[in-house]
Amino acid sequence: MDKFMQVAIDEARSGLNDGGIPIGSVLVRNGSIIGQGHNLRVQQGDPMAHAEISCLRNAGRIGHYRGSILYSTLMPCYLCAGAVVQFGIKKVIVGESRTFPGAKEFMESHGVEVVDLDLDECVAMMDDFINKNPELWNEDIGE
Amino acid sequence: MDKFMQVAIDEARSGLNDGGIPIGSVLVRNGSIIGQGHNLRVQQGDPMAHAEISCLRNAGRIGHYRGSILYSTLMPCYLCAGAVVQFGIKKVIVGESRTFPGAKEFMESHGVEVVDLDLDECVAMMDDFINKNPELWNEDIGE
Repeated sequence: MDKFMQVAIDEARSGLNDGGIPIGSVLVRNGSIIGQGHNLRVQQGDPMAHAEISCLRNAGRIGHYRGSILYSTLMPCYLCAGAVVQFGIKKVIVGESRTFPGAKEFMESHGVEVVDLDLDECVAMMDDFINKNPELWNEDIGE
Repeated sequence: MDKFMQVAIDEARSGLNDGGIPIGSVLVRNGSIIGQGHNLRVQQGDPMAHAEISCLRNAGRIGHYRGSILYSTLMPCYLCAGAVVQFGIKKVIVGESRTFPGAKEFMESHGVEVVDLDLDECVAMMDDFINKNPELWNEDIGE
């Protein structure tokens, strides 16, 4: 397992344990984690607090994103993909996209390299959550 | 002046008075304001706290965005446009796009109606800010 993806999965499981949506994210630059977070929609009542947004928020004002890699347990939606494109993050590594296709093509069309690890562990985590909480999941993706 | 755009401008000026970036946003549904906010990058050290994100965060978990209109004093960037597309906001009204072209075409390509009021007041507010704070502005848009 990619060690940074493992941290993202740990973030997702931490969110799940708090009653939240199990999606985690990590921002890496120069081989070090400079931000990490998980979805906080439920915990903070904040529909913008997707995992990637929480992660980038926690990284703080780092000035620029050149050379950084964003990890997420799930393919980013348009909100989070928009952040990737706007702030010039050029590489995104995701745990899976089977449970949610996200905005892969949008990122790629803006020159972002998107790597999908297609991990059974990430699929199982989301499948289980969506089956148990379909309304919460649909709310999170605006459906 | 559109009364909702006036509230967005007031939000922008409030942020400016606190040392922040002068961009404001308002979310309207059924003719009433259900959320408003301004850019808080400086005030909260949060690079994700663009005006539209702050506004949508403040609106809270409203369940769906059908019939809602997002106002912003400035054309949304990809981050904020991504939120618009992801959450199904179908109409965006902006104060101007002369100082920043934003992601108008991206939103339109996803069926969003984008109305640009091209207000001299909004242009002057941003022009003055960018001239005085070019580094802060470039940081806000990831450049």
